[in-house]
Amino acid sequence: MKEINIGLLGCGTIGTGVAKILIEKKDLIISRVGASLNLKYAADIDIKKDRGIRFDDGVLVTDAYKVVNDPDIDIVIELIGGEGIAKDLILKAIDNGKQVVTANKALLAGHGNEIFKAAEEKGVDLAFEASVGGCMPIVKSLRESLVGNYIKSITGILNGTCNYILSKITDDGSSFESALKQAQDNGFAEADPALDIEGIDTAHKLAILTSLAYGMEINFKDIYIEGISGITPLDIEFAGQFGYRIKLLAISKNRGNAIEARVHPTMIPSGNLLSRVNGSMNAIAISGDAVGDMMLYGHGAGMMPTAGAVISDTVDLARNLLSGAKKRIPLLSYQSESIRKILVLSVDEISTYYYFRFSAVDHPGVLSKISGVLGKYGISIKSVHQKGRKSEGSVPIVMLTHLAREADVKKAFSEITSLEIVNDKSVLIRIEDENWQE
Amino acid sequence: MKEINIGLLGCGTIGTGVAKILIEKKDLIISRVGASLNLKYAADIDIKKDRGIRFDDGVLVTDAYKVVNDPDIDIVIELIGGEGIAKDLILKAIDNGKQVVTANKALLAGHGNEIFKAAEEKGVDLAFEASVGGCMPIVKSLRESLVGNYIKSITGILNGTCNYILSKITDDGSSFESALKQAQDNGFAEADPALDIEGIDTAHKLAILTSLAYGMEINFKDIYIEGISGITPLDIEFAGQFGYRIKLLAISKNRGNAIEARVHPTMIPSGNLLSRVNGSMNAIAISGDAVGDMMLYGHGAGMMPTAGAVISDTVDLARNLLSGAKKRIPLLSYQSESIRKILVLSVDEISTYYYFRFSAVDHPGVLSKISGVLGKYGISIKSVHQKGRKSEGSVPIVMLTHLAREADVKKAFSEITSLEIVNDKSVLIRIEDENWQE
Repeated sequence: MKEINIGLLGCGTIGTGVAKILIEKKDLIISRVGASLNLKYAADIDIKKDRGIRFDDGVLVTDAYKVVNDPDIDIVIELIGGEGIAKDLILKAIDNGKQVVTANKALLAGHGNEIFKAAEEKGVDLAFEASVGGCMPIVKSLRESLVGNYIKSITGILNGTCNYILSKITDDGSSFESALKQAQDNGFAEADPALDIEGIDTAHKLAILTSLAYGMEINFKDIYIEGISGITPLDIEFAGQFGYRIKLLAISKNRGNAIEARVHPTMIPSGNLLSRVNGSMNAIAISGDAVGDMMLYGHGAGMMPTAGAVISDTVDLARNLLSGAKKRIPLLSYQSESIRKILVLSVDEISTYYYFRFSAVDHPGVLSKISGVLGKYGISIKSVHQKGRKSEGSVPIVMLTHLAREADVKKAFSEITSLEIVNDKSVLIRIEDENWQE
Repeated sequence: MKEINIGLLGCGTIGTGVAKILIEKKDLIISRVGASLNLKYAADIDIKKDRGIRFDDGVLVTDAYKVVNDPDIDIVIELIGGEGIAKDLILKAIDNGKQVVTANKALLAGHGNEIFKAAEEKGVDLAFEASVGGCMPIVKSLRESLVGNYIKSITGILNGTCNYILSKITDDGSSFESALKQAQDNGFAEADPALDIEGIDTAHKLAILTSLAYGMEINFKDIYIEGISGITPLDIEFAGQFGYRIKLLAISKNRGNAIEARVHPTMIPSGNLLSRVNGSMNAIAISGDAVGDMMLYGHGAGMMPTAGAVISDTVDLARNLLSGAKKRIPLLSYQSESIRKILVLSVDEISTYYYFRFSAVDHPGVLSKISGVLGKYGISIKSVHQKGRKSEGSVPIVMLTHLAREADVKKAFSEITSLEIVNDKSVLIRIEDENWQE
């Protein structure tokens, strides 16, 4: 039987899952591939740790360069993460003509153009299904299944930690801090959860998705990013009263010669399937001109779901090697000569609906002042709600707007929050509501 | 630029959509594939009809055999449907060494083993993404993305007509007949909707999915099938009171050396994402040992979503031809030597929860008689509800059971419905509830 030799770099949580499948499900893989995927090396700094798997002698090594330089290795799987040594190892593997699998979204978001160019020039494949959405076949869907579509928009819940926290606040009325603590206790969130809760991890993934969806170079730095640390139980409760739920969404819209790409907490109607994606689950909704609306749902992280995606990539590359396929699918979904730089619009250029919550002194004329400022910037108010009773002389005033331009909203919001009659922290949350009747 | 010649068989709704994409999105496809997919022939009995597309001269032909016998044709797309001439044309195309794309679920469910064997022997590819779930990449997910998983279960809403009808009854309180009429008026349901509402179309699709999921020969005839024509607004209303919604589900569970495969109306908890799949939309939930729970959601039918899936298959096969790939992926997901006959258990062998509605005379002792019969067959009652007021001397008695074996339930149900105190039509609906506490 034919053998494909695999070299694994990084044997942490996901790496251990990958090794588990390669070793314990050897027969399953043979029955699918018709060849044996042989884990020749698993490189990690700690090779003494008990990973609950029986590695053959000599498989665990500490020197990752030994793996990428071994002429017998056909496929290198990089699961070290980060933008340091992982990049160097991937480039070395490519240079040595290896096929490469990676789950490293931060690296691809930051240095993907350089890495894909190197792979393209060397004629090797680089697969990265596990970099976005864990087990969900979103890369495969964009590169293969939706090949006859112009993509109109992508809307995703791409970070399990954030979704867990927001679900906890929504369902149990937890505070942000207590929900975060629960996420950490359950092993979802890192000890330093900034990458998650500040929306950066979500934006890394969105950078990869927009590239695949529209045939553009990866552009992480122009994505607008706002995290969830400002979300309070109060706003979630008000959202519920308007029929909305708050999710941290990655949103991209095709605007013709430019795109929107933004990450921020968003109110969506409770009839929208995305609003029903709870706990640490992820989902990605795609709208295409042929396909209409479709959605993928699943575990966005975790040992086995992510390892399963890595295995699917590995098998894909093995099948290419075994079937003699050369450059079967362009790495970034479009032929390299068709990939363009596409402008990512500033968030100031978007138009959407807005939820405001101002805390204002409770006397006549307040509403008139606030709505005067909004009127000055051409922002028209859909509804105003004076919610609850006043505390310490302040009342929460909640407003929903009609379609408004972010640039105008920003100016108005800043002017209103600097009014003397408005105190405390004011809140602005964007609303995406496809059923809104203007 | 390289050209791949396509021959289309059948230019009805889906065929027209496919021709539209091939002609009007030629540039998009070139930018994805790096070659031109050239629609050389579109065969149909009616070549005069205005399809709203500009075909080049000579493309529209009436003789489908001319297409499959033309040595220049690389890929044949069969969209005639049915089990008659379509089968003969596909076998002829295979025999001529063409790659084949089909959306014909009835044909694959009924004659798939023979057709796949012919393709395997000839070494040609046969792609069939559009045969199940319209635009959703379920075939690709099972054949490629979930390759490292043992599949534990599949649960799908696979027929848009049935889902539309059940959604209408649920949301608007329509009668079955009026909901069906609306589906027909909206173009979802055929004039003769039996294939849809009797569950047969759903079972065709389940037969294909179980084969791909478990590595088994296609077995349509052993699938248990029950349609939705017996579903009343009353039972949907009662279901709602217990926190359930009724969907026509295709259900398959891996039972080790055998599988369950059944199609029937099913109550599922309203917290289950599948219960939120409304209107003509489809969804498929898959549980795998690595992936955990995942779900695909999208249009299960319709011109452009289905045409998009056909194009994705066509591009896949074109990429194989262009990259020199031979036998890259086994047709039915597992290597042919690993495909087994796997027993499809009789529905008598399943165990699940049940909803009963009996219409009984309103006098003391009735409940004791009914529960006596259930007890005799070892069926334990979770709750009993006497719903609403009596009409013409009868009261509806609703019961939910604990886990029970279908064989026992059938006997008990038949004995109860033949009691003199029970009149009118009694109702049995299966419940799938993963959160049920026994």
